[in-house]
Amino acid sequence: MSGNSYGKLFTVTTFGESHGKALGCIVDGCPPGIELSEADLQLDLDRRKPGTSRHTTQRREADEVEILSGVFEGKTTGTPIGLLIKNTDQRSKDYSNIEETFRPAHADYVYTHKYGFRDYRGGGRSSARETAMRVAAGAIAKKFLATKGIGVKGYLSQLGPVKIDPAKFDWNEVHNNPFFSPDADIVNTMEQYMDDLRKEGNSVGAKISVVATGTPVGLGEPIFDRLDADLAHALMSINAVKGVEIGDGFECVAQKGTEHRDEMTPDGFLSNHAGGVLGGISTGQDIIAHIALKPTSSLRLPGRSINSRGEAIEVITTGRHDPCVGIRATPIAEAMMAIVLMDHLLRHRGQNADVSCDVPIIT
Amino acid sequence: MSGNSYGKLFTVTTFGESHGKALGCIVDGCPPGIELSEADLQLDLDRRKPGTSRHTTQRREADEVEILSGVFEGKTTGTPIGLLIKNTDQRSKDYSNIEETFRPAHADYVYTHKYGFRDYRGGGRSSARETAMRVAAGAIAKKFLATKGIGVKGYLSQLGPVKIDPAKFDWNEVHNNPFFSPDADIVNTMEQYMDDLRKEGNSVGAKISVVATGTPVGLGEPIFDRLDADLAHALMSINAVKGVEIGDGFECVAQKGTEHRDEMTPDGFLSNHAGGVLGGISTGQDIIAHIALKPTSSLRLPGRSINSRGEAIEVITTGRHDPCVGIRATPIAEAMMAIVLMDHLLRHRGQNADVSCDVPIIT
Amino acid sequence: MSGNSYGKLFTVTTFGESHGKALGCIVDGCPPGIELSEADLQLDLDRRKPGTSRHTTQRREADEVEILSGVFEGKTTGTPIGLLIKNTDQRSKDYSNIEETFRPAHADYVYTHKYGFRDYRGGGRSSARETAMRVAAGAIAKKFLATKGIGVKGYLSQLGPVKIDPAKFDWNEVHNNPFFSPDADIVNTMEQYMDDLRKEGNSVGAKISVVATGTPVGLGEPIFDRLDADLAHALMSINAVKGVEIGDGFECVAQKGTEHRDEMTPDGFLSNHAGGVLGGISTGQDIIAHIALKPTSSLRLPGRSINSRGEAIEVITTGRHDPCVGIRATPIAEAMMAIVLMDHLLRHRGQNADVSCDVPIIT
Amino acid sequence: MSGNSYGKLFTVTTFGESHGKALGCIVDGCPPGIELSEADLQLDLDRRKPGTSRHTTQRREADEVEILSGVFEGKTTGTPIGLLIKNTDQRSKDYSNIEETFRPAHADYVYTHKYGFRDYRGGGRSSARETAMRVAAGAIAKKFLATKGIGVKGYLSQLGPVKIDPAKFDWNEVHNNPFFSPDADIVNTMEQYMDDLRKEGNSVGAKISVVATGTPVGLGEPIFDRLDADLAHALMSINAVKGVEIGDGFECVAQKGTEHRDEMTPDGFLSNHAGGVLGGISTGQDIIAHIALKPTSSLRLPGRSINSRGEAIEVITTGRHDPCVGIRATPIAEAMMAIVLMDHLLRHRGQNADVSCDVPIIT
Repeated sequence: MSGNSYGKLFTVTTFGESHGKALGCIVDGCPPGIELSEADLQLDLDRRKPGTSRHTTQRREADEVEILSGVFEGKTTGTPIGLLIKNTDQRSKDYSNIEETFRPAHADYVYTHKYGFRDYRGGGRSSARETAMRVAAGAIAKKFLATKGIGVKGYLSQLGPVKIDPAKFDWNEVHNNPFFSPDADIVNTMEQYMDDLRKEGNSVGAKISVVATGTPVGLGEPIFDRLDADLAHALMSINAVKGVEIGDGFECVAQKGTEHRDEMTPDGFLSNHAGGVLGGISTGQDIIAHIALKPTSSLRLPGRSINSRGEAIEVITTGRHDPCVGIRATPIAEAMMAIVLMDHLLRHRGQNADVSCDVPIIT
Repeated sequence: MSGNSYGKLFTVTTFGESHGKALGCIVDGCPPGIELSEADLQLDLDRRKPGTSRHTTQRREADEVEILSGVFEGKTTGTPIGLLIKNTDQRSKDYSNIEETFRPAHADYVYTHKYGFRDYRGGGRSSARETAMRVAAGAIAKKFLATKGIGVKGYLSQLGPVKIDPAKFDWNEVHNNPFFSPDADIVNTMEQYMDDLRKEGNSVGAKISVVATGTPVGLGEPIFDRLDADLAHALMSINAVKGVEIGDGFECVAQKGTEHRDEMTPDGFLSNHAGGVLGGISTGQDIIAHIALKPTSSLRLPGRSINSRGEAIEVITTGRHDPCVGIRATPIAEAMMAIVLMDHLLRHRGQNADVSCDVPIIT
Repeated sequence: MSGNSYGKLFTVTTFGESHGKALGCIVDGCPPGIELSEADLQLDLDRRKPGTSRHTTQRREADEVEILSGVFEGKTTGTPIGLLIKNTDQRSKDYSNIEETFRPAHADYVYTHKYGFRDYRGGGRSSARETAMRVAAGAIAKKFLATKGIGVKGYLSQLGPVKIDPAKFDWNEVHNNPFFSPDADIVNTMEQYMDDLRKEGNSVGAKISVVATGTPVGLGEPIFDRLDADLAHALMSINAVKGVEIGDGFECVAQKGTEHRDEMTPDGFLSNHAGGVLGGISTGQDIIAHIALKPTSSLRLPGRSINSRGEAIEVITTGRHDPCVGIRATPIAEAMMAIVLMDHLLRHRGQNADVSCDVPIIT
Repeated sequence: MSGNSYGKLFTVTTFGESHGKALGCIVDGCPPGIELSEADLQLDLDRRKPGTSRHTTQRREADEVEILSGVFEGKTTGTPIGLLIKNTDQRSKDYSNIEETFRPAHADYVYTHKYGFRDYRGGGRSSARETAMRVAAGAIAKKFLATKGIGVKGYLSQLGPVKIDPAKFDWNEVHNNPFFSPDADIVNTMEQYMDDLRKEGNSVGAKISVVATGTPVGLGEPIFDRLDADLAHALMSINAVKGVEIGDGFECVAQKGTEHRDEMTPDGFLSNHAGGVLGGISTGQDIIAHIALKPTSSLRLPGRSINSRGEAIEVITTGRHDPCVGIRATPIAEAMMAIVLMDHLLRHRGQNADVSCDVPIIT
């Protein structure tokens, strides 16, 4: 179960570098009988694909996924599902000058020390490219969760300093702009900000939010595999993520107990500061998580670094890059949340299928 | 490896409820030959113990840990280490009225739905009491890490709205006050704030920071077992934690790429916005994490809730409780970081012991 | 999940050396609501206990197990169950001369090289004593399986050269003699053989069989966690086991396909050469496994060995020892089979709870 | 880590059905810097390939493996290695009549009940075809083990009733005949026996032995991940295996202690009844395991069975089949032993890299 595998019952194992022959993934533990086709996966992959707008990387990839096993006559068989995406557009020559240089804030330096050398083309295994596979696996999880009435949706909360206005929140807007912004009115401001950034040659971070609706009460395996702990793990494993919050997150620090607690009535909870998780177990309310993404490390603006001989150098990155990886993280965050929820759903029913309880469910 | 076990090579498995007979823990995978005694563990346990100051719970527990196996003639044998702490002071009668009530913002409601019923005395398994075992296990990890020149220390960054002043930061102060504050001057303000809170009958959250020094470059197993992902998992698994940051965390959202990136020179990194982790692997710089703890859920101030028949009730919690769990989380956060680092150290040398590399290490 | 933990959903983690303070165990993932008390566990522990007859070790141990957590008002809570057995009768002085000697066919030599040193009292962690904890954990699994109509029973097939007569097989006899023999008539022969062995100062091996009845079809997770693979793992992990068979085992080598295959009719299978497992999945027939136990390594008859300086020495073992560990392995084999079946039952329903199938079940 | 993943540090995860698009595998945790190419893997795959002799299945498959990731400039990078084999020769029409029938002694019946339906073409996931992937993964393990001076070799001990003569044992003969027999003189007898079997339309079982040489002392993680327990698990997971032995295996049952124990002298062990494993840890001697394979279940001779409506039917299997799967299991058994040894080698050095010991190693 080394580092490239996630999950206990529903497991995702991936392989592939940004400039290798292909990316792949094995999804194990998907229950049988779920309708599944390449089209189901392609939908989410296309949302992640670079080249969708002028604000994302101009790298054109087909990102066409193939299902190689685990599906028969249109339904999952319960056996492992092999997925494959061939890398078609890598432009190796863009990276030939970096074999001996370490780009600041990239994983070049650490990969070299950990493994003795590294595949220097693109980001190799550390590139965001590998997340394509997670999105495909997450699409399978979403398909299953949908059969249980559970949905997972994400959106952009903040692009650099530009925050969405909660009063203008509309889920239908999220897919109408290239930012996944649920606030239609702020899109122009975001586009302007991004164009300025592009001209400046700089980058900025982002904050993404993910919400799961229709979740049952009871998911999560205290104490170490609490639902929120597993969500934190899965979300923090996404490239460029530097922070994870559940519910009110860091706002809890200055909150008083009377403000924070979500009181209960026979008709439901009166608030959701907890973000749908208490004591590491889902309450049945919407599960809400936020992630902070750092600004992209590949810049045209020169940065000081060292080369493989330890000499001081200056690094400039040209070629095709994302000025804001945050824009693309939304489908990835959805995928990770879906994978975690699915794993927990199977675990919970595995252990507690015989449990019955008279207490009313108020969500 | 169900939900109460953490780690791949260095594993911690715990059991015990707040009002059961005892708490226990099995620590597996500790290398042999490490000097270990009860005294080593007791040191950290005492830091966590309630009753240390008037600001924490007035529940008096001996919290005396016994080593039952895995140590021979003062050294670890490499076989599993069994630890035991007997519960001595539970005051069951304080909880007899809550068998049928669900306290708001506690895990009562979710545990009942997940398992069909619950041990209603105290918080049962969801109580903070079980963290005593993690602190003991973490002390073992700290002992081993120390032999490798790695240290793990935590402190309070913020108590409710009261922030420490970075200019006054002094590690030596952390153990001189009951808040784990590294800023000696702010302690009076914190004490005053806490007394007001106590009179009001309310509670507040806190922000704790943990720092690991002397870490080697190369720890972390991308992509799912990235060091930061495992840290997020371990820290989020602590009761009351609602957010985790690595390095600059959520400040990254508004940072530009030129501000965020830690440039490198032959003499070292020029900054540490990354918090010591890049691409999921340690850089050799200090590893910095922050956690947000929600305000305590047990209040004297009445809160609306329901009972097990779904009827509306009002809940008041009397007895002994923590007005701010944040004060006690510092040793627990240290313990979790130590456990994660130790697991990763063993995993890294397991896979990469033969790796050699000419590139200079600049940290 | 280091080496002292077994299971995916239903997990058993143990600690303890033969001459340490105590043996312990954490059983995690037991569904809630199962009635459980110390008496349930004590029953199986007593079957394993030395001193039961003159043919087993004369070491008197109370082997009284305590339940420290995970049970409330007589039922499992779904939280981890901590078990403890204090070591009361170790007679350390019997072992003081072996600190520097390696007993042939014991684990002394390998433990010293693996860990650098060893707890030389008794067998330390390698002693059969630690199996007491597995029997206790297995009793919990048996309790749960019984609620599903599944039973697990073992018996002695062969003691050294003395085989039971299948024509005389009677389950009721198994508990009427100290050998777990289902053949009442052969007991005298076995007793005579054992007395001769004792006088000679030698030991002999044994073959134990375990049968699970009432199992459903569908348990097992191909390809690596096949039911038979997990059974082989669990049974081979018992001290002194050198071989495992499922169904006809090594008799299959010379069988023809027409002889081996278990044909099916609407009224059931016509035979059970497969031992209840096909393609790694249970068929619904009785699950049958056999294990081979090597003769005890502690003998009064001198054996050649070396000491810790590598010098040739002669080793004689005095004190209290088992002339045939096989006699005691029956409850341990039952326990391991029960643990494996329980883990698989939870895993199977976790993944496949929604599966329905019109095909009749013929078992 | 669901059922299709094996290993803790060195992990193998596979996917693929016999008649799906492709078979694949992800090998994770291979240390970096090991030379690896498709040719290394192809060598072992060709040994396993059907069509090699008239005694094995006449199904012609290219079985050409592709390395899709994890290797850069001819060396492993330490990142996961993706392998792919496209299925080219399935002859689907041979299986069209079995959609509704359950072949006796195949996994058809159990797969249908476990998953609700099954991919009825060939054996689907239960087919021996998936072992091709394990052989490829095992070849990677063998490459690494070779750098440590460890070799893994297998041979046929017994084909049906025909046993090899230990006095004629010659490792060089193993690759000179299609049976992997180390006894050149018995090959004619085996060929004759096989031809008679083929004419009869029947099948027979086999016994394969695997030996690891040059292994260090100290591999194995008691108590549950003992080296022999993991070997038993890995070997029993191979299709058609019904029994596993370590060392003398079931011969131990009738052995006396004085016969069985491997005495030690300063110049080495005097025997190897233990098969290289004591107390679950390798002794440094050759590690010896044997497996029993049942006769092939696909026969031209009619067998009684039921169809999916539970009606009595007769089943005849035509097409291309193995009359003795045992002949092909040798490379698979080698592969599994190599995978287990590699995983344990990484785990052992992960935990015990700092151990030193003055005691001489006598192997």
